[in-house]
Amino acid sequence: MLDCIIVGSGLAGISAALTLKANGKSFLMLGKKSLSAKIEKADTVSNYPGLYSVSGADFCDALKSQLAREEIDVIEQKVTGVYAMKGKFLVTAEGDNTYESRTVILATGVETVKPIAGEEAYLGRGVSYCATCDGMLYKDKTIAVLCTTKEAEHEVEYLARLAKKVYLLPLYKGVAIAAENVEKIVKMPEKIEGGLKVSSITLKGGQTLAVDGVFMLKDSVSPSALVGGLQVEKGHVVVDRACKTNLDGLFAAGDCTGRPYQYTKAAGEGNVAAHSVVEYLAKKE
Amino acid sequence: MLDCIIVGSGLAGISAALTLKANGKSFLMLGKKSLSAKIEKADTVSNYPGLYSVSGADFCDALKSQLAREEIDVIEQKVTGVYAMKGKFLVTAEGDNTYESRTVILATGVETVKPIAGEEAYLGRGVSYCATCDGMLYKDKTIAVLCTTKEAEHEVEYLARLAKKVYLLPLYKGVAIAAENVEKIVKMPEKIEGGLKVSSITLKGGQTLAVDGVFMLKDSVSPSALVGGLQVEKGHVVVDRACKTNLDGLFAAGDCTGRPYQYTKAAGEGNVAAHSVVEYLAKKE
Repeated sequence: MLDCIIVGSGLAGISAALTLKANGKSFLMLGKKSLSAKIEKADTVSNYPGLYSVSGADFCDALKSQLAREEIDVIEQKVTGVYAMKGKFLVTAEGDNTYESRTVILATGVETVKPIAGEEAYLGRGVSYCATCDGMLYKDKTIAVLCTTKEAEHEVEYLARLAKKVYLLPLYKGVAIAAENVEKIVKMPEKIEGGLKVSSITLKGGQTLAVDGVFMLKDSVSPSALVGGLQVEKGHVVVDRACKTNLDGLFAAGDCTGRPYQYTKAAGEGNVAAHSVVEYLAKKE
Repeated sequence: MLDCIIVGSGLAGISAALTLKANGKSFLMLGKKSLSAKIEKADTVSNYPGLYSVSGADFCDALKSQLAREEIDVIEQKVTGVYAMKGKFLVTAEGDNTYESRTVILATGVETVKPIAGEEAYLGRGVSYCATCDGMLYKDKTIAVLCTTKEAEHEVEYLARLAKKVYLLPLYKGVAIAAENVEKIVKMPEKIEGGLKVSSITLKGGQTLAVDGVFMLKDSVSPSALVGGLQVEKGHVVVDRACKTNLDGLFAAGDCTGRPYQYTKAAGEGNVAAHSVVEYLAKKE
């Protein structure tokens, strides 16, 4: 069994991975090969000690090289659930993957898009965060897809191959999806409604679309949606100074634990969380 | 009046300074032009995200360039006290300097040399941490000087010009002090004794030297010796997740707040402390 699973590949996750590696621990890092859209798209980074006036893209490249040289891989799979079991964790990811570990570090970042009305209420009843997990449920049906980044366009295309009709609600510019059954509507969604299952989504301005499902393809998923029983306050995971959550063996670091949303703070917490994991494992042995 | 005074020029202090600067705050940084012996002398730094396999010396140079380009100066003065007054702080430093600020960030690092018996009891009664502050008190007298780094040799030389006799207890190699009244003894001190004032110091192995005073020239001074009323546990400043101490307007970051003693953690806390200062000042306005 793995010592740790790191959920997220932003600065907190990267920092945790580097420190776990330095301490000889076995772990997996689930995130994105591109690491973090937030870092990559940053204009210039100026208050990160040691790196002066680097572009976000250069910073991201430096981090990728560092991970490569330390032989740390990022597994590109969206995590769909983290389950605390007796003395271990079960982590499920898209593609029916499951992983087991003694500890988990949540480094999921922060949602830049707030949940809309009905989103959380209909989660699992027509609302989904994962195209490859739930796409098959909407074969030949009509769906709406909110998509926050260009990087997720391949997920929209995947859905378009399954669904009869896709209403694409993009939150980025330069949409490049050619599929004939995809209709682009540049309006923010406001409300998801239905009975037992989703039946419609209403957009800003009042337009209502009849749909069988809604996919919210966001950069990050709220930690409380991932982990049952996790203590969360105002959308942030509650942690102590050692980055411990209320669940034994589960740690959290970076933007998901609250402000300031800063690279330096996230890196610092990833380091602290990794040290807490090392200490936790030593005590269990 | 200044918005903030940062005490210390290691990674926590540097990180705090960069972030205060980015937020347009006025501040002073009291520390060392060489920044930090701990960084400079590090072999290689490998788990600091974004910097791969750099030597401590290169890391230190990168930090110096970054501070220079941001026009952040380090004032090379040893801080001798931090006094919380009504709505402001008074910070005293060697050379009879005093500074006032609305907030203070303690980033003093951690003492690598534990206090010896009698050290804290005789502080101000024959024990001193600051050569230029108290040297004059020992004109033509006999003193012992514990010196932890080569960088402090100029302080030993300063004391040698005043005192009749100096017993130098160096904790580093390559001592290069030529003064005739300096006798080097390579033994750890164990105990300081006396009546109302210091009268002797005993070294490991039992040798006892009759002295009028003892200077402990260390890289860092314990926070509780600097700030009256500061809550400290096992030698570490007690802070919350926002790096707040028990004293309103006083924040702490880096090694002085506890383990892990890591660059990344220290940088992260410096960032958090600076944001807490910004928030604190906004509330007071």
